[in-house]
Amino acid sequence: MGIVTADLGISLDGFIAGPRQSLEHPMGEGTEQLHRWHFEQPEENAAEIAEIVNAGAFIMGRNMFGPIRGEWSGDWRGWWGEEPPYHAPVFVLTHYPREPLVMDGTTFYFVTDGVASALEQAREAAGDANISIGGGADTIRQFLNAGLIDELRLHTAPILVHEGERLFDGVRDLTFEPLGTTANSLVTHTRYRLTYPH
Amino acid sequence: MGIVTADLGISLDGFIAGPRQSLEHPMGEGTEQLHRWHFEQPEENAAEIAEIVNAGAFIMGRNMFGPIRGEWSGDWRGWWGEEPPYHAPVFVLTHYPREPLVMDGTTFYFVTDGVASALEQAREAAGDANISIGGGADTIRQFLNAGLIDELRLHTAPILVHEGERLFDGVRDLTFEPLGTTANSLVTHTRYRLTYPH
Repeated sequence: MGIVTADLGISLDGFIAGPRQSLEHPMGEGTEQLHRWHFEQPEENAAEIAEIVNAGAFIMGRNMFGPIRGEWSGDWRGWWGEEPPYHAPVFVLTHYPREPLVMDGTTFYFVTDGVASALEQAREAAGDANISIGGGADTIRQFLNAGLIDELRLHTAPILVHEGERLFDGVRDLTFEPLGTTANSLVTHTRYRLTYPH
Repeated sequence: MGIVTADLGISLDGFIAGPRQSLEHPMGEGTEQLHRWHFEQPEENAAEIAEIVNAGAFIMGRNMFGPIRGEWSGDWRGWWGEEPPYHAPVFVLTHYPREPLVMDGTTFYFVTDGVASALEQAREAAGDANISIGGGADTIRQFLNAGLIDELRLHTAPILVHEGERLFDGVRDLTFEPLGTTANSLVTHTRYRLTYPH
């Protein structure tokens, strides 16, 4: 059985999204630089990118899929155009029921009954492969507080974002075991095995 | 000429001190674990410890020297007993004038006219060696916002502190160039060269 991972682009001051999220700034203002390592240095970061891409299923919060609830209850097909970067099923947490959205290479499933249900469906889809939880902060918090993430992978961009959503706000106590770190000019990768004391 | 460095023990959620600082918890509650790498794994972290210890002068805020202003205006001789871990002059930022305190291996000087003056005095004392800025958060913020720190070394302990003083709160925009990272079970070391856009 695969493990449950969370891969998060984060700033030096701990933000995974900036303020004032909009169509123009899906992750909030000032956060475009969080993911430069992914787009500008794919070769230097090939191993880390491969680990994300090779997941057998993905889970994400509704803001990762679309900007405003009402806008994507009908025709919205995600931020990525007609060729989303996911090559395995994606489970989107939402309060709004919707039929699965079949696209090129993936299907988006809309899960209205919470993180445990999403994980159960993702496990079935992933088989022996890993399951990747993609954010945002509220989704990660729910999974961490339920003790459901096995490995946290922080991709720290050397920038300050100053305001927005902090990864660890409201997260319960848990134990982080460092598994290694590497760095290049746009990012420091650090991974932790998580365990959950009672 | 040496460079100006800041070595900071920091939690995964970005705190360098916890809440409710007291004689019993000089850095606030819950932060004892921030520095376990230093005390419990001196061999694994020998290179990083040597770089700190070998500075030619140190600068620190008043809370790093003592708990409450009134208490150390007279007899207070620092947190460390009669053998402080500093083997070079230490410049303590304070609003309360005091004669230099000569101790075994170091002298504490009390600087009442701000960070630039403290740095000037430290440079003179350090000669060609580096100058290490020790914290707390308010001191680091003042040095960063004045553009005076050349290299930031974060020693990230794999713990959550949840509340207290965040390193980057109120810090101006600056540019971080990653210089490398290493990790072991109690700490991830990451260093950045800092530059200050106009």
